[in-house]
Amino acid sequence: MQNLTMRSIGFVHSPFSQADQIPRGLDAKHDEEGMLEILPEFEPGLEDIDGFSHLYVLWVFDRSQGYDLVSTPPCDTRPHGVFATRSPHRPNPIGLTVVRLLGREGNRLRVRGVDMLDGTPILDIKPYLSSVPEAELKRGWQAEVEARRKDSNCATS
Amino acid sequence: MQNLTMRSIGFVHSPFSQADQIPRGLDAKHDEEGMLEILPEFEPGLEDIDGFSHLYVLWVFDRSQGYDLVSTPPCDTRPHGVFATRSPHRPNPIGLTVVRLLGREGNRLRVRGVDMLDGTPILDIKPYLSSVPEAELKRGWQAEVEARRKDSNCATS
Repeated sequence: MQNLTMRSIGFVHSPFSQADQIPRGLDAKHDEEGMLEILPEFEPGLEDIDGFSHLYVLWVFDRSQGYDLVSTPPCDTRPHGVFATRSPHRPNPIGLTVVRLLGREGNRLRVRGVDMLDGTPILDIKPYLSSVPEAELKRGWQAEVEARRKDSNCATS
Repeated sequence: MQNLTMRSIGFVHSPFSQADQIPRGLDAKHDEEGMLEILPEFEPGLEDIDGFSHLYVLWVFDRSQGYDLVSTPPCDTRPHGVFATRSPHRPNPIGLTVVRLLGREGNRLRVRGVDMLDGTPILDIKPYLSSVPEAELKRGWQAEVEARRKDSNCATS
Protein backbone atom coordinates (compact mmCIF):
# COMPACT_ATOMS: atom_id res chain seq x y z
CA MET A 1 0.00 0.00 0.00
CA GLN A 2 1.08 3.51 -0.67
CA ASN A 3 0.67 5.77 2.32
CA LEU A 4 -2.97 6.72 2.52
CA THR A 5 -4.07 10.28 3.13
CA MET A 6 -7.22 10.79 5.18
CA ARG A 7 -9.27 13.92 5.54
CA SER A 8 -11.87 15.04 8.03
CA ILE A 9 -15.53 14.58 7.08
CA GLY A 10 -16.62 16.63 10.09
CA PHE A 11 -16.00 17.40 13.74
CA VAL A 12 -17.16 16.37 17.19
CA HIS A 13 -18.80 18.86 19.52
CA SER A 14 -18.29 17.50 23.02
CA PRO A 15 -18.26 18.85 26.58
CA PHE A 16 -14.58 17.91 26.93
CA SER A 17 -11.91 20.49 26.17
CA GLN A 18 -9.13 18.62 27.97
CA ALA A 19 -8.31 14.94 28.14
CA ASP A 20 -8.46 14.83 31.94
CA GLN A 21 -12.17 15.76 31.82
CA ILE A 22 -13.07 12.54 30.00
CA PRO A 23 -14.34 9.90 32.43
CA ARG A 24 -11.86 7.06 32.75
CA GLY A 25 -11.68 4.04 34.95
CA LEU A 26 -13.06 0.55 34.81
CA ASP A 27 -16.49 1.73 35.87
CA ALA A 28 -16.51 4.89 33.74
CA LYS A 29 -19.77 5.59 32.00
CA HIS A 30 -19.72 7.52 28.76
CA ASP A 31 -23.18 9.01 28.85
CA GLU A 32 -22.31 12.51 27.76
CA GLU A 33 -24.21 13.98 24.87
CA GLY A 34 -22.45 15.56 21.95
CA MET A 35 -22.92 16.48 18.33
CA LEU A 36 -21.29 15.09 15.22
CA GLU A 37 -21.19 17.95 12.72
CA ILE A 38 -20.64 16.66 9.21
CA LEU A 39 -19.24 19.03 6.59
CA PRO A 40 -22.00 20.22 4.23
CA GLU A 41 -20.37 18.56 1.22
CA PHE A 42 -20.79 15.15 2.90
CA GLU A 43 -24.34 15.66 4.24
CA PRO A 44 -25.99 13.54 1.50
CA GLY A 45 -24.07 10.57 2.93
CA LEU A 46 -26.23 10.75 6.07
CA GLU A 47 -29.42 9.77 4.21
CA ASP A 48 -31.33 7.12 6.23
CA ILE A 49 -28.83 7.11 9.08
CA ASP A 50 -31.53 8.07 11.57
CA GLY A 51 -33.02 4.55 11.42
CA PHE A 52 -30.04 3.17 13.31
CA SER A 53 -29.86 3.29 17.10
CA HIS A 54 -26.07 3.04 17.33
CA LEU A 55 -23.18 4.15 15.17
CA TYR A 56 -19.47 3.54 14.98
CA VAL A 57 -17.52 6.78 14.82
CA LEU A 58 -13.95 6.63 13.53
CA TRP A 59 -11.96 9.70 14.47
CA VAL A 60 -8.47 11.11 14.89
CA PHE A 61 -6.47 11.46 18.11
CA ASP A 62 -5.43 14.86 16.78
CA ARG A 63 -3.90 16.03 20.06
CA SER A 64 -1.72 12.98 20.62
CA GLN A 65 1.92 12.96 19.60
CA GLY A 66 3.82 9.87 18.53
CA TYR A 67 3.22 6.34 19.73
CA ASP A 68 4.45 3.74 22.19
CA LEU A 69 4.30 0.08 21.22
CA VAL A 70 4.31 -0.94 24.88
CA SER A 71 3.13 1.13 27.80
CA THR A 72 1.52 0.91 31.22
CA PRO A 73 -2.08 2.17 31.29
CA PRO A 74 -3.18 4.42 34.18
CA CYS A 75 -5.23 1.54 35.60
CA ASP A 76 -2.49 -1.03 35.80
CA THR A 77 1.03 -1.54 37.03
CA ARG A 78 1.98 -3.78 34.14
CA PRO A 79 2.82 -2.80 30.58
CA HIS A 80 0.74 -3.98 27.62
CA GLY A 81 1.09 -3.80 23.86
CA VAL A 82 -0.65 -0.84 22.24
CA PHE A 83 -2.90 -3.12 20.16
CA ALA A 84 -4.21 -4.63 23.41
CA THR A 85 -5.19 -1.18 24.72
CA ARG A 86 -7.22 1.89 23.78
CA SER A 87 -4.19 4.15 24.17
CA PRO A 88 -4.28 7.36 22.09
CA HIS A 89 -0.59 6.86 21.23
CA ARG A 90 -0.96 4.46 18.29
CA PRO A 91 0.98 4.00 15.04
CA ASN A 92 -2.12 5.23 13.18
CA PRO A 93 -3.89 7.56 15.63
CA ILE A 94 -7.46 6.44 14.90
CA GLY A 95 -10.08 6.36 17.66
CA LEU A 96 -13.23 4.25 17.61
CA THR A 97 -16.34 5.01 19.64
CA VAL A 98 -19.81 3.48 19.66
CA VAL A 99 -22.44 6.16 20.19
CA ARG A 100 -26.20 6.10 20.50
CA LEU A 101 -27.91 8.22 17.88
CA LEU A 102 -30.46 10.53 19.50
CA GLY A 103 -31.47 12.56 16.47
CA ARG A 104 -30.45 14.20 13.24
CA GLU A 105 -30.87 17.79 12.19
CA GLY A 106 -29.49 18.26 8.69
CA ASN A 107 -25.74 17.77 8.86
CA ARG A 108 -25.73 17.36 12.64
CA LEU A 109 -26.13 14.12 14.56
CA ARG A 110 -27.00 14.39 18.23
CA VAL A 111 -25.46 11.43 20.04
CA ARG A 112 -24.88 9.99 23.49
CA GLY A 113 -21.66 8.40 24.60
CA VAL A 114 -18.98 10.78 23.34
CA ASP A 115 -15.50 10.29 24.77
CA MET A 116 -13.70 12.55 22.32
CA LEU A 117 -12.32 16.03 22.87
CA ASP A 118 -14.28 18.97 21.50
CA GLY A 119 -13.21 19.64 17.93
CA THR A 120 -12.02 16.10 17.22
CA PRO A 121 -11.91 15.38 13.46
CA ILE A 122 -14.20 12.59 12.24
CA LEU A 123 -12.99 10.17 9.55
CA ASP A 124 -16.00 7.91 9.07
CA ILE A 125 -19.37 6.86 10.44
CA LYS A 126 -20.75 3.35 10.04
CA PRO A 127 -23.97 1.68 11.20
CA TYR A 128 -23.63 -0.64 14.18
CA LEU A 129 -25.36 -3.83 13.10
CA SER A 130 -24.61 -6.63 15.52
CA SER A 131 -22.93 -7.39 18.83
CA VAL A 132 -20.75 -10.18 20.10
CA PRO A 133 -22.76 -11.91 22.85
CA GLU A 134 -21.36 -10.93 26.25
CA ALA A 135 -21.06 -14.60 27.20
CA GLU A 136 -18.49 -15.10 24.41
CA LEU A 137 -16.29 -12.16 25.36
CA LYS A 138 -12.93 -12.50 27.06
CA ARG A 139 -11.25 -9.27 28.03
CA GLY A 140 -7.71 -10.32 28.90
CA TRP A 141 -5.67 -8.06 31.11
CA GLN A 142 -8.59 -5.67 31.60
CA ALA A 143 -10.61 -8.40 33.27
CA GLU A 144 -7.62 -9.27 35.44
CA VAL A 145 -7.24 -5.67 36.56
CA GLU A 146 -10.95 -5.49 37.33
CA ALA A 147 -10.63 -8.58 39.47
CA ARG A 148 -7.59 -7.16 41.30
CA ARG A 149 -8.97 -3.76 42.11
CA LYS A 150 -12.25 -2.08 41.60
CA ASP A 151 -11.15 1.51 42.00
CA SER A 152 -8.54 1.67 39.28
CA ASN A 153 -8.28 4.33 36.63
CA CYS A 154 -8.54 2.59 33.30
CA ALA A 155 -10.35 3.49 30.12
CA THR A 156 -12.80 0.79 29.13
CA SER A 157 -14.72 2.49 26.36
CA MET B 1 -6.85 19.03 10.96
CA GLN B 2 -4.12 18.75 8.42
CA ASN B 3 -4.57 15.79 6.14
CA LEU B 4 -3.42 12.72 8.01
CA THR B 5 -1.18 10.14 6.45
CA MET B 6 -1.71 6.54 7.47
CA ARG B 7 0.59 3.60 6.92
CA SER B 8 0.06 -0.12 7.03
CA ILE B 9 1.00 -1.95 10.24
CA GLY B 10 0.52 -5.31 8.53
CA PHE B 11 -1.56 -7.34 6.10
CA VAL B 12 -4.49 -9.74 6.07
CA HIS B 13 -4.09 -13.28 4.78
CA SER B 14 -7.56 -14.40 3.75
CA PRO B 15 -9.08 -17.02 1.46
CA PHE B 16 -10.60 -14.27 -0.72
CA SER B 17 -8.72 -13.02 -3.75
CA GLN B 18 -11.74 -11.36 -5.35
CA ALA B 19 -14.58 -9.37 -3.84
CA ASP B 20 -17.26 -11.65 -5.28
CA GLN B 21 -15.90 -14.56 -3.18
CA ILE B 22 -16.75 -12.82 0.08
CA PRO B 23 -20.06 -14.05 1.48
CA ARG B 24 -22.70 -11.34 1.28
CA GLY B 25 -26.36 -11.27 2.00
CA LEU B 26 -28.48 -10.72 5.05
CA ASP B 27 -27.80 -14.22 6.30
CA ALA B 28 -24.14 -14.28 5.36
CA LYS B 29 -21.86 -15.81 7.95
CA HIS B 30 -18.29 -14.65 8.16
CA ASP B 31 -16.73 -17.74 9.66
CA GLU B 32 -13.67 -17.93 7.46
CA GLU B 33 -10.32 -18.18 9.14
CA GLY B 34 -7.49 -15.88 8.21
CA MET B 35 -4.24 -14.47 9.53
CA LEU B 36 -3.32 -10.94 10.52
CA GLU B 37 0.39 -10.60 9.82
CA ILE B 38 1.83 -7.64 11.68
CA LEU B 39 5.08 -6.10 10.42
CA PRO B 40 8.01 -7.15 12.64
CA GLU B 41 8.67 -3.57 13.74
CA PHE B 42 5.18 -3.44 15.33
CA GLU B 43 5.21 -6.91 16.92
CA PRO B 44 5.90 -5.59 20.47
CA GLY B 45 2.51 -3.86 20.26
CA LEU B 46 0.82 -7.28 20.33
CA GLU B 47 1.96 -8.02 23.90
CA ASP B 48 -0.95 -9.45 25.92
CA ILE B 49 -3.39 -9.35 23.01
CA ASP B 50 -4.00 -13.07 23.26
CA GLY B 51 -6.10 -12.60 26.40
CA PHE B 52 -8.88 -11.05 24.34
CA SER B 53 -11.45 -13.18 22.57
CA HIS B 54 -12.43 -10.56 19.98
CA LEU B 55 -10.64 -7.73 18.23
CA TYR B 56 -11.54 -4.77 16.09
CA VAL B 57 -9.51 -4.65 12.91
CA LEU B 58 -9.30 -1.34 11.06
CA TRP B 59 -8.15 -1.77 7.50
CA VAL B 60 -8.03 -0.15 4.07
CA PHE B 61 -10.35 -0.78 1.13
CA ASP B 62 -7.22 -0.66 -1.02
CA ARG B 63 -8.93 -2.01 -4.14
CA SER B 64 -11.83 0.46 -4.12
CA GLN B 65 -11.74 3.60 -6.20
CA GLY B 66 -13.48 6.84 -5.25
CA TYR B 67 -16.69 7.18 -3.28
CA ASP B 68 -20.42 7.66 -3.65
CA LEU B 69 -22.28 9.64 -1.01
CA VAL B 70 -25.54 7.94 -1.98
CA SER B 71 -25.92 4.54 -3.59
CA THR B 72 -28.18 1.50 -3.78
CA PRO B 73 -26.74 -1.56 -2.04
CA PRO B 74 -26.98 -4.94 -3.80
CA CYS B 75 -29.64 -6.03 -1.31
CA ASP B 76 -32.04 -3.18 -1.79
CA THR B 77 -33.86 -1.23 -4.46
CA ARG B 78 -33.56 2.05 -2.59
CA PRO B 79 -30.54 4.34 -2.25
CA HIS B 80 -28.98 5.08 1.12
CA GLY B 81 -26.29 7.44 2.36
CA VAL B 82 -22.81 5.97 2.52
CA PHE B 83 -22.59 6.53 6.29
CA ALA B 84 -25.68 4.34 6.72
CA THR B 85 -24.01 1.47 4.83
CA ARG B 86 -20.87 -0.65 4.85
CA SER B 87 -20.07 0.30 1.26
CA PRO B 88 -16.37 0.14 0.33
CA HIS B 89 -16.72 3.42 -1.58
CA ARG B 90 -16.29 5.87 1.31
CA PRO B 91 -14.68 9.33 1.60
CA ASN B 92 -12.02 7.71 3.82
CA PRO B 93 -11.79 4.09 2.66
CA ILE B 94 -11.48 2.49 6.09
CA GLY B 95 -13.02 -0.92 6.80
CA LEU B 96 -13.91 -2.23 10.24
CA THR B 97 -14.27 -5.90 11.10
CA VAL B 98 -14.79 -7.72 14.39
CA VAL B 99 -12.84 -10.97 14.43
CA ARG B 100 -12.47 -13.76 16.93
CA LEU B 101 -8.88 -14.30 18.00
CA LEU B 102 -7.94 -17.98 17.75
CA GLY B 103 -4.26 -17.75 18.55
CA ARG B 104 -1.03 -15.83 18.24
CA GLU B 105 2.27 -16.99 16.86
CA GLY B 106 4.81 -14.19 17.12
CA ASN B 107 3.71 -11.46 14.72
CA ARG B 108 0.79 -13.49 13.35
CA LEU B 109 -2.74 -13.55 14.73
CA ARG B 110 -4.95 -16.41 13.61
CA VAL B 111 -8.53 -15.17 13.52
CA ARG B 112 -12.03 -16.19 12.50
CA GLY B 113 -14.46 -13.91 10.72
CA VAL B 114 -12.37 -12.29 8.02
CA ASP B 115 -14.29 -10.49 5.28
CA MET B 116 -11.31 -8.73 3.74
CA LEU B 117 -9.48 -9.53 0.53
CA ASP B 118 -6.15 -11.31 0.74
CA GLY B 119 -3.38 -8.75 1.11
CA THR B 120 -5.56 -6.04 2.64
CA PRO B 121 -3.47 -3.47 4.56
CA ILE B 122 -4.18 -3.22 8.30
CA LEU B 123 -4.21 0.19 10.01
CA ASP B 124 -4.96 -0.70 13.62
CA ILE B 125 -6.10 -3.43 16.00
CA LYS B 126 -8.03 -2.72 19.18
CA PRO B 127 -9.48 -4.95 21.90
CA TYR B 128 -13.24 -5.50 21.77
CA LEU B 129 -14.41 -4.76 25.28
CA SER B 130 -18.19 -4.49 25.36
CA SER B 131 -21.29 -4.95 23.26
CA VAL B 132 -24.50 -3.01 22.83
CA PRO B 133 -27.28 -5.31 24.08
CA GLU B 134 -29.19 -6.73 21.10
CA ALA B 135 -32.47 -5.56 22.62
CA GLU B 136 -31.32 -1.94 22.32
CA LEU B 137 -30.28 -2.16 18.67
CA LYS B 138 -32.26 -0.67 15.81
CA ARG B 139 -30.95 -1.40 12.36
CA GLY B 140 -32.87 1.02 10.17
CA TRP B 141 -33.17 0.22 6.48
CA GLN B 142 -31.35 -3.07 6.91
CA ALA B 143 -34.09 -4.34 9.21
CA GLU B 144 -36.70 -3.16 6.71
CA VAL B 145 -35.01 -5.04 3.89
CA GLU B 146 -34.81 -8.16 6.03
CA ALA B 147 -38.52 -7.91 6.70
CA ARG B 148 -39.30 -7.44 3.00
CA ARG B 149 -37.25 -10.26 1.65
CA LYS B 150 -35.16 -12.99 3.14
CA ASP B 151 -33.12 -13.91 0.10
CA SER B 152 -31.56 -10.56 -0.65
CA ASN B 153 -27.90 -9.93 -1.26
CA CYS B 154 -26.78 -7.45 1.35
CA ALA B 155 -23.62 -7.23 3.40
CA THR B 156 -24.39 -7.24 7.08
CA SER B 157 -20.94 -7.66 8.57
